[in-house]
Amino acid sequence: MEPTLNPESGFLRFRIDFSYDGTNLSGWAKQPDQRTVQGELEAARYEVELVVAGRTDAGVHATAQVAHFDLPEQDKYGKAWSVQDLVYRLNRMITEEIRVKNITLAPPFFHARFSALRRTYIYKIADGQRQVEPLKRFDIATWYRHLDLSRLNEASSRLLGEHDFATFCKPGGAGTSIRRLEKFHWERTGDANLVATVTADAFCYSMVRNIVGAVVCVGEGRFEPEWISAILANKSRISESYVFPGRGLTLISVEYPSDSELEARAAITIRRRDED
Amino acid sequence: MEPTLNPESGFLRFRIDFSYDGTNLSGWAKQPDQRTVQGELEAARYEVELVVAGRTDAGVHATAQVAHFDLPEQDKYGKAWSVQDLVYRLNRMITEEIRVKNITLAPPFFHARFSALRRTYIYKIADGQRQVEPLKRFDIATWYRHLDLSRLNEASSRLLGEHDFATFCKPGGAGTSIRRLEKFHWERTGDANLVATVTADAFCYSMVRNIVGAVVCVGEGRFEPEWISAILANKSRISESYVFPGRGLTLISVEYPSDSELEARAAITIRRRDED
Repeated sequence: MEPTLNPESGFLRFRIDFSYDGTNLSGWAKQPDQRTVQGELEAARYEVELVVAGRTDAGVHATAQVAHFDLPEQDKYGKAWSVQDLVYRLNRMITEEIRVKNITLAPPFFHARFSALRRTYIYKIADGQRQVEPLKRFDIATWYRHLDLSRLNEASSRLLGEHDFATFCKPGGAGTSIRRLEKFHWERTGDANLVATVTADAFCYSMVRNIVGAVVCVGEGRFEPEWISAILANKSRISESYVFPGRGLTLISVEYPSDSELEARAAITIRRRDED
Repeated sequence: MEPTLNPESGFLRFRIDFSYDGTNLSGWAKQPDQRTVQGELEAARYEVELVVAGRTDAGVHATAQVAHFDLPEQDKYGKAWSVQDLVYRLNRMITEEIRVKNITLAPPFFHARFSALRRTYIYKIADGQRQVEPLKRFDIATWYRHLDLSRLNEASSRLLGEHDFATFCKPGGAGTSIRRLEKFHWERTGDANLVATVTADAFCYSMVRNIVGAVVCVGEGRFEPEWISAILANKSRISESYVFPGRGLTLISVEYPSDSELEARAAITIRRRDED
């Protein structure tokens, strides 16, 4: 079935921008008997179904997630929707772990997932038994060994560009694991923690947590940077033991093209059929 | 009974610096069947008793709390204590809501509570239905009306100096409610939230949350700044309904005099006998 790039006749499409603390949520996707971001949002507006830009995993956070949903052109009283009212009511209904920042009428051919140009995540690590302030602990992973910043960046730069990332993608997903990694760069911030910024056109399942785990092996001195190039070329899935936890990962941006290019962008993505 | 300014013969006094996220803790002081900061720390080192600089209330946080405890001169194997080892072991035992940053051998006459010169707290408010990022929500209180920054500061400045703060102190405490308020100033930070910095020689129970609640009445326009001077002079306890929640409050600094002045400072405080 082709994805619908526009709402059905008689419906309007809305874009919703929101944030969440994923610490105690079981990821994005609805699941029976689990608290998930989609589950919490849809329970508050039971008539809607949300399509999201980045289907985050359990424990992962977002400061700038984007989704869309379709509503009948008028509310049940026959009145036009007020987006301010929708934001206010939704935030009153849902847990404070999730905050809706904005709801707007989407332009034609806006599809939160297929129209997106790129996603950016950050990954935070307190390395070398560096202490984490209790109030700031929720989005920082820890690693007991010291990590060398220049080795991390040398290893990370070897993954830039368009590659088949099968080594770092959980198997079983349909379609291609070819992605274009545009940025993967580490810095030490004011509190001396490490923060990686990672941008790609799209990511396959748990890809950021896999590539973080792999470059950490180089950063701590276990492997040389050449190892990254070798496992990328090899395409056989790396050990699960390298995967870093969802806790350190936050989606910070989803970019879309200008309104006139939304349709063309979605067409490209749909041909590949497995973007996220 | 006079407080002991030095440890008993055969004991050493240690200073401990630590932080905590008080969200799910019932304040500092040990209580049966409650998780408290003192309770969690003492349970990990059952032979010690902690004396703290600022006895924070339920929900209140600290990024720079100070306490002291006394230990026999040698450990049970007859060896000298390693403070690095004490920090490491303590952090392994306790909840990640509390982190011990440092333990040092205290100078003579160091008493975490009585030797302190001043305490500084911050209080954070997201006003006017401003949204709070879910990952940053733990130390921010909310207020539905917009608060005027200059009115907040005009009201707050009327409390500066040495006064009897009975209006803002929970009754029942022994001794004086005279305090010297050295700083009480509001700013809007980058995310547009309000942050008050509050410094005094010492605070009586729930005093910061009371004065914040009172100046908010001026900031939102309900009362004029003169009202603050009037209720301060009046000395009759203000309504409980003005008190702001512990959530927004964080202890960020405790200052001590130089080692040679610790004894004199403690003597002054003990004469007043009700500092905190």
